[in-house]
Amino acid sequence: ALLRYSDPTPGARQVRVAHLIVLGIGLFAVILLSVDELDGQIRHVLRIVIWTVTFLFLIEYLARLWVAPEAPHYDQDSETGARLRWAVSIQGLIGLLAILPAFMFFGGYGITGSDAASVFCILWIMKVGLHAPAFSTLFRVMSNERAPIASVLILFAILLMMAATAAHIFERVRQPEQFGSLPNAMWWAVVTLTTTGYGDVVPLTLGGRLVGSLLMISGIAVLALMTGVLATGFAQEERRREYLRVWEQVARVPLFASLGVVTLSEIVGKLRTRYYPARITVVRRGDAGDSMFFISSGEVEVRLPNGGSVRLGEGAFFGEMALLERQPRTASVATTKPTTLLVLYASDFYEIASHIPKLAEAVEVEAKRRREENLERQTAGRR
Amino acid sequence: ALLRYSDPTPGARQVRVAHLIVLGIGLFAVILLSVDELDGQIRHVLRIVIWTVTFLFLIEYLARLWVAPEAPHYDQDSETGARLRWAVSIQGLIGLLAILPAFMFFGGYGITGSDAASVFCILWIMKVGLHAPAFSTLFRVMSNERAPIASVLILFAILLMMAATAAHIFERVRQPEQFGSLPNAMWWAVVTLTTTGYGDVVPLTLGGRLVGSLLMISGIAVLALMTGVLATGFAQEERRREYLRVWEQVARVPLFASLGVVTLSEIVGKLRTRYYPARITVVRRGDAGDSMFFISSGEVEVRLPNGGSVRLGEGAFFGEMALLERQPRTASVATTKPTTLLVLYASDFYEIASHIPKLAEAVEVEAKRRREENLERQTAGRR
Amino acid sequence: ALLRYSDPTPGARQVRVAHLIVLGIGLFAVILLSVDELDGQIRHVLRIVIWTVTFLFLIEYLARLWVAPEAPHYDQDSETGARLRWAVSIQGLIGLLAILPAFMFFGGYGITGSDAASVFCILWIMKVGLHAPAFSTLFRVMSNERAPIASVLILFAILLMMAATAAHIFERVRQPEQFGSLPNAMWWAVVTLTTTGYGDVVPLTLGGRLVGSLLMISGIAVLALMTGVLATGFAQEERRREYLRVWEQVARVPLFASLGVVTLSEIVGKLRTRYYPARITVVRRGDAGDSMFFISSGEVEVRLPNGGSVRLGEGAFFGEMALLERQPRTASVATTKPTTLLVLYASDFYEIASHIPKLAEAVEVEAKRRREENLERQTAGRR
Amino acid sequence: ALLRYSDPTPGARQVRVAHLIVLGIGLFAVILLSVDELDGQIRHVLRIVIWTVTFLFLIEYLARLWVAPEAPHYDQDSETGARLRWAVSIQGLIGLLAILPAFMFFGGYGITGSDAASVFCILWIMKVGLHAPAFSTLFRVMSNERAPIASVLILFAILLMMAATAAHIFERVRQPEQFGSLPNAMWWAVVTLTTTGYGDVVPLTLGGRLVGSLLMISGIAVLALMTGVLATGFAQEERRREYLRVWEQVARVPLFASLGVVTLSEIVGKLRTRYYPARITVVRRGDAGDSMFFISSGEVEVRLPNGGSVRLGEGAFFGEMALLERQPRTASVATTKPTTLLVLYASDFYEIASHIPKLAEAVEVEAKRRREENLERQTAGRR
Repeated sequence: ALLRYSDPTPGARQVRVAHLIVLGIGLFAVILLSVDELDGQIRHVLRIVIWTVTFLFLIEYLARLWVAPEAPHYDQDSETGARLRWAVSIQGLIGLLAILPAFMFFGGYGITGSDAASVFCILWIMKVGLHAPAFSTLFRVMSNERAPIASVLILFAILLMMAATAAHIFERVRQPEQFGSLPNAMWWAVVTLTTTGYGDVVPLTLGGRLVGSLLMISGIAVLALMTGVLATGFAQEERRREYLRVWEQVARVPLFASLGVVTLSEIVGKLRTRYYPARITVVRRGDAGDSMFFISSGEVEVRLPNGGSVRLGEGAFFGEMALLERQPRTASVATTKPTTLLVLYASDFYEIASHIPKLAEAVEVEAKRRREENLERQTAGRR
Repeated sequence: ALLRYSDPTPGARQVRVAHLIVLGIGLFAVILLSVDELDGQIRHVLRIVIWTVTFLFLIEYLARLWVAPEAPHYDQDSETGARLRWAVSIQGLIGLLAILPAFMFFGGYGITGSDAASVFCILWIMKVGLHAPAFSTLFRVMSNERAPIASVLILFAILLMMAATAAHIFERVRQPEQFGSLPNAMWWAVVTLTTTGYGDVVPLTLGGRLVGSLLMISGIAVLALMTGVLATGFAQEERRREYLRVWEQVARVPLFASLGVVTLSEIVGKLRTRYYPARITVVRRGDAGDSMFFISSGEVEVRLPNGGSVRLGEGAFFGEMALLERQPRTASVATTKPTTLLVLYASDFYEIASHIPKLAEAVEVEAKRRREENLERQTAGRR
Repeated sequence: ALLRYSDPTPGARQVRVAHLIVLGIGLFAVILLSVDELDGQIRHVLRIVIWTVTFLFLIEYLARLWVAPEAPHYDQDSETGARLRWAVSIQGLIGLLAILPAFMFFGGYGITGSDAASVFCILWIMKVGLHAPAFSTLFRVMSNERAPIASVLILFAILLMMAATAAHIFERVRQPEQFGSLPNAMWWAVVTLTTTGYGDVVPLTLGGRLVGSLLMISGIAVLALMTGVLATGFAQEERRREYLRVWEQVARVPLFASLGVVTLSEIVGKLRTRYYPARITVVRRGDAGDSMFFISSGEVEVRLPNGGSVRLGEGAFFGEMALLERQPRTASVATTKPTTLLVLYASDFYEIASHIPKLAEAVEVEAKRRREENLERQTAGRR
Repeated sequence: ALLRYSDPTPGARQVRVAHLIVLGIGLFAVILLSVDELDGQIRHVLRIVIWTVTFLFLIEYLARLWVAPEAPHYDQDSETGARLRWAVSIQGLIGLLAILPAFMFFGGYGITGSDAASVFCILWIMKVGLHAPAFSTLFRVMSNERAPIASVLILFAILLMMAATAAHIFERVRQPEQFGSLPNAMWWAVVTLTTTGYGDVVPLTLGGRLVGSLLMISGIAVLALMTGVLATGFAQEERRREYLRVWEQVARVPLFASLGVVTLSEIVGKLRTRYYPARITVVRRGDAGDSMFFISSGEVEVRLPNGGSVRLGEGAFFGEMALLERQPRTASVATTKPTTLLVLYASDFYEIASHIPKLAEAVEVEAKRRREENLERQTAGRR
């Protein structure tokens, strides 16, 4: 349970939260320690906090190392092999770096100046990255689009060098300090091309200002190109990730389980996963409804118009009436536990319905049954 | 009518405009009051304005609280229950916050310094948000994409901390004031990573400038990633909203009302809603035409080539000749009232036409009838 | 011919170029005149230039007013009516504003100071907008997306006011000049939220810096949202414009003219228009080929492998062999006149080919004929 | 082999790397030489380095000129003709510019001051562009979208001029140095509209600040529009490039080679190319699998669960079991040589499978064979 950062069980969640809190306290102590105006008493406390956090990370590292063989990735290897392979994985290396200062400490260096604190800081912050749920998506986008990203960066470098050289030629005489050498001119060009514009180095001649103007406009174009590349890549990657996520969830809904793999693959492409914590209202009575929901895990409570309520569990669906009769929602639905829903939008429902009449029929039969049930209850309620 | 901010009736519209004007006057008075150079006379007038606006908001709050039970969301609850639930809804809380200073006033605090004015200001500005028509879309996009947004922010934090630490190490000796502590270095890193670049803190050493350059380029990448995430999410959400909007309008057009739900869902996906105020020219004679229009509410006037004009009301369509005969528009069409049109683009018309011959036929029959009518009129006009 | 800015005839093109040159000279003179260091001689020359340009614009305005009744938009109106309606159109008003200073001059004001020059400048620059080919697309995108754009701006305003108030509270004591009043704090907030960061006003307290940091990060989010809105809208609008453009061109290609309107509409959705000036190489021998071309206007020269060349005119097609046989281009093709081509990409060709066998067949028959012809020529060439 | 920068053979790769290293050393020497504080000894060494690099570029230029007739583009021309045409191509001109200083040197100018060094720098940096793999994509995007890009730039110019004039009017009196002439005001407007914000020129009056605020917000809109244009164009261009790339690779996979051209074109649209260097893990045991892979060139090693391994070469496929049985990956696969894979995602596999049962069947037969083989091996392994 300790092993996986993305494990959905409550135990793993608590470990994650605890890990984040310890990390936050540690980073806060490191940052505070770097402020010179603090008096010795507080500095001492902060040092103790940092030692404690390092010690906790050491324990965590050893624990993770110990349970490494349980991970499905390494089940072919021997126990030692699995541990070695985990130790050289990205997670393992980040864990090792986080406790490195502890070894340095035992080796006699100690935490004395703010330098050491800085080193801690750089190493601990990387642990935060292990908690980001969509980090792998971002990295895959950047990896898939590495050719156009490299081209944008090369374009950046070419613009940078040409502008730096031109500004060096124009401004050298008037501002020898700022533009006298190419490295200095390049610093100005980076600050300008990224539209940061510190203002510590500013062209004063007409030629230098023209170069600067063109560079700023190029900066907008470079940013736009970079965004175009990453936006395109992200849209594609996100679509694929969602497909995979739905594919894992869809088998838990009996209505889909009976379908052939080709039909199923079509539906999977239309569904979206939505995760809701406990006690969140998913649909609200009187709202316009453009989607129906299938429960792939968790439980929801339907608050009926007559005041009663019904609970629906894994595999059930709701919200279909708004789709079939084009009416506002007739009941509010809220989650009772953390729940994963599969959402099917109206536009997609009818497209699927025309291809797979069996599915549409099943939904309609259930909707009819519910409508009659509601009517009966309302009649009963009024009596 | 008072109840709904998004109600399309003219009465609700007037209330909204009045509300916005009062809000604007109030905010303007608050901003002006904070300027210290004003003389006492004007300050006194401004204070009266602020009291009046607060009083109007108090009345508005009570009125809204009173009519809360009429809202469809709360029709299951008792009157008191509906009012309580409205009071704890987002609208209710914003309303309450806006009048809070009034209570403080009656409680004896009074509006004496600019501090109190500032508090007003923070609370009133949130009422502006209630008027934004597409706010809910923006929030749903951010909610749907919260995992990748969180990852981008974590990436932001990691880059920030690492750059701050590195700059702290490089620049500490030369600029102890600016980079001497980590919190100060972090301020520089935020200003640089967002490409804001105040220029109050600027690295001077070679190492610090290299770190700064990498940070600025990372800033562009972070912005591009954020844009990629939000652009993708916005495109999806907008498509769904539009589907829902068309779905609500489409039933008013008799041509569509007779179609089965599957056929209809296909057409709904192709139509776009466009809202026009009164006296706006929708199509102009002689323009190239790539779309036809169905009137879902309101009325338009067709200005015929011979000088006459015809009025078309709810459920009628126009602009089909440009599609069928690939000619420029033969008549100008302008709205006479606020009108909601459903637009069907040429590319989609032909796709639909090949699937649903009945629809294409109906459009062609009407087009033929109109063409003959026009010819007759022109002949009559020339005689 | 004078009338339409977007007219494709060479005469209209020359008028446009001349207009732009005059405009450029005029603007340049206005800008130069505002520099105080110039001596009287040059100032005098510049004033004469400005008078001349104004006079030319006056003539242009009268000419356009005179020919207004010829425009297809106004052919229903009487001559005077057409002129009146042109005079109140956007084009007419911009033209009028451009010559307004001339009237002021005849009314006795004269061009004496740089103030008057500034006024000229503001009015003339708008004429540049009439030459932008895709301006209407940009405006339609902004008009279609006005609801989400308004929401982003309202979000901008809310963030602005809240940050300005918070910074006002935090920084008031330490920097009474910069943050002492709300208007001043709002100036800082605008500069920060747009990530411009002049650095003239910078928060110094911890609270102010936290507010500033959040504001900068919000600035990135606001920019990303704005981009998401406009990028989505632009992609949709561009697709529609392209459809309309192809639709106008496609009738000139005999191969397409014989097809029914439904089939045609499918092809139109796949074609792309590309405009080439004279003497541009469209395909290059030995390149990989992923598209074929239909000539909708103009002429191209095919440079055959044996050194000969063939000219193809309106309605012909080329580049089909690379598609049919998946080989590199066997000949270079260059335009001889300004040419508009319809491009069909390989991916779309095969999709169309499977639906409309007649089209694929026609292309293949022509390709076969050409291949044989080439073989014959090569044999002849070698002899 | 020397000829093509994008040639995939190892020899060409080594030449490219060597070329980049020489280029890097040369640029580094040029940049260093511009720093005035260096002493004469180091300056002398740097000058020798620059001369050597120039000499190497001269040799490279002559070599490329010599082998020009071998290029497929020029095989129609005579040897001299091919060399002439290469000399006036973009590659040839960049090569010529890079050695131009050498001619200047032999002509007696020598490398004496930092001026000459600057000129070198501008000319050499362009050679970097020849190594960017996706440069042509970026240029085609900008060429295809030139009309909207021009419109955005014209919008930029109009906003710039109007803001500069307005700020000139408002700020002239208070800051005659900064806003006294239009060119100066335009410099401020460029710095503001691109959200660079140096802070060297800042409006101080209320009117000037309002103009500045509007200009910054316009800057965000201009950036968003530019991004929208380029993002849309990039997505389209990338799709086409990928199609072409797959089209070239797909013939090497026997499973696809037997399909008709129409069926093939459909599959080509779904496949994606991915290039992997040697010794990279493509799929990892235990991961979720959403794709299968076809090897179009290179070789991979499948590490079976029982410890054995199998090598798959050109034309083979793997990863199909995760698709067919919706299970995690059962084996890790790593490349042994540089390998190009064609990726087929689950969502697309099932869409294709329903149209082309033959393909799905072939994949399933192979999957079944492998599963049985694995079972046998495991049984054998346990014994």
